Amino acid sequence: MRKVTLGLANSLDNYIARRDGGSDWLRWSKEVAEISAAFMKTIDAILIGRKTYEVMLNNGQTSFPGGKNYVFSRAKKGRTVLARALAHKPDENVELVNEDAAAFVGKLRKRKGKGIVVFGGGELAQSLFEAGLIDEIVLNIQPVLLGSGIPLFHEMKKQINLDLIDSRKLKAGSLIVSYRIKH
Amino acid sequence: MRKVTLGLANSLDNYIARRDGGSDWLRWSKEVAEISAAFMKTIDAILIGRKTYEVMLNNGQTSFPGGKNYVFSRAKKGRTVLARALAHKPDENVELVNEDAAAFVGKLRKRKGKGIVVFGGGELAQSLFEAGLIDEIVLNIQPVLLGSGIPLFHEMKKQINLDLIDSRKLKAGSLIVSYRIKH
Repeated sequence: MRKVTLGLANSLDNYIARRDGGSDWLRWSKEVAEISAAFMKTIDAILIGRKTYEVMLNNGQTSFPGGKNYVFSRAKKGRTVLARALAHKPDENVELVNEDAAAFVGKLRKRKGKGIVVFGGGELAQSLFEAGLIDEIVLNIQPVLLGSGIPLFHEMKKQINLDLIDSRKLKAGSLIVSYRIKH
Repeated sequence: MRKVTLGLANSLDNYIARRDGGSDWLRWSKEVAEISAAFMKTIDAILIGRKTYEVMLNNGQTSFPGGKNYVFSRAKKGRTVLARALAHKPDENVELVNEDAAAFVGKLRKRKGKGIVVFGGGELAQSLFEAGLIDEIVLNIQPVLLGSGIPLFHEMKKQINLDLIDSRKLKAGSLIVSYRIKH
């Protein structure tokens, strides 16, 4: 079974982006770049929620490098908008997923391949958590309270117990923490 | 000026208690007890929000040991309920505060004394953060996603930048992090 990791940068007050999707507050550094590069070698599939993907498109980015990008949208209208944007600027690396995210990821993780990462998408993460499909959480906690924005963790119907694997203070002032989900 | 610290245990998904105030999910250990005891020696005033205090009263606890307890309530009705409860079971260690929390704490920190800690009360913390009255944050992050509950960080009108002071992994699996607020 392929490992599914929720891998994101967040603020201490549980946001992954400003309300408008802005990420100007993220601290990047050589150290973060090296950690990211090492992690990206372990994966070949990237799961993205529709809202996060729309922010990417607005920034002129159609996919993340390093793996197949699967973009999830439950709303037909949302999919139409994304499909049009991709028709205008095709990207072979992107697949729009129409079916239920949990059903799709349940099958995807049984196929042969490297690790799977969930990039952005609090709602996507929520449905995968509730379906028991996330194995690890890796957060790069930024030293900031944004005050408002797009939340990382949404309300869930169940409690999820974790094991702290590791924590590491980076020179740029953020803290990388990793947890294993207790299934 | 006395230092004001927001000191709490929270879940990784930003809750300080279950919806009903429950704290059964908190991991206690000798190590946590020692850290708490060392911290409590540095303070002599404890700030508590009304909702947190009501949970305490429901559990038969009228105050925290180690300092004067100041309980804040903006609503007249809330204060009446608390005052009745305290009349029924008096506790010299408790003072109900009627005035605006930020105004009160602004004065309190200028008086002579040891450190001040904010225990519980997401709304209380929010108003103190917005007024620039919190100096440090110490969180004991528990290895759990509660899924729902009473949030630690509420929406705020402004962004607050932090400096990571320290992080420490405890044997019981939680992570203590401390931040200095950049004023």
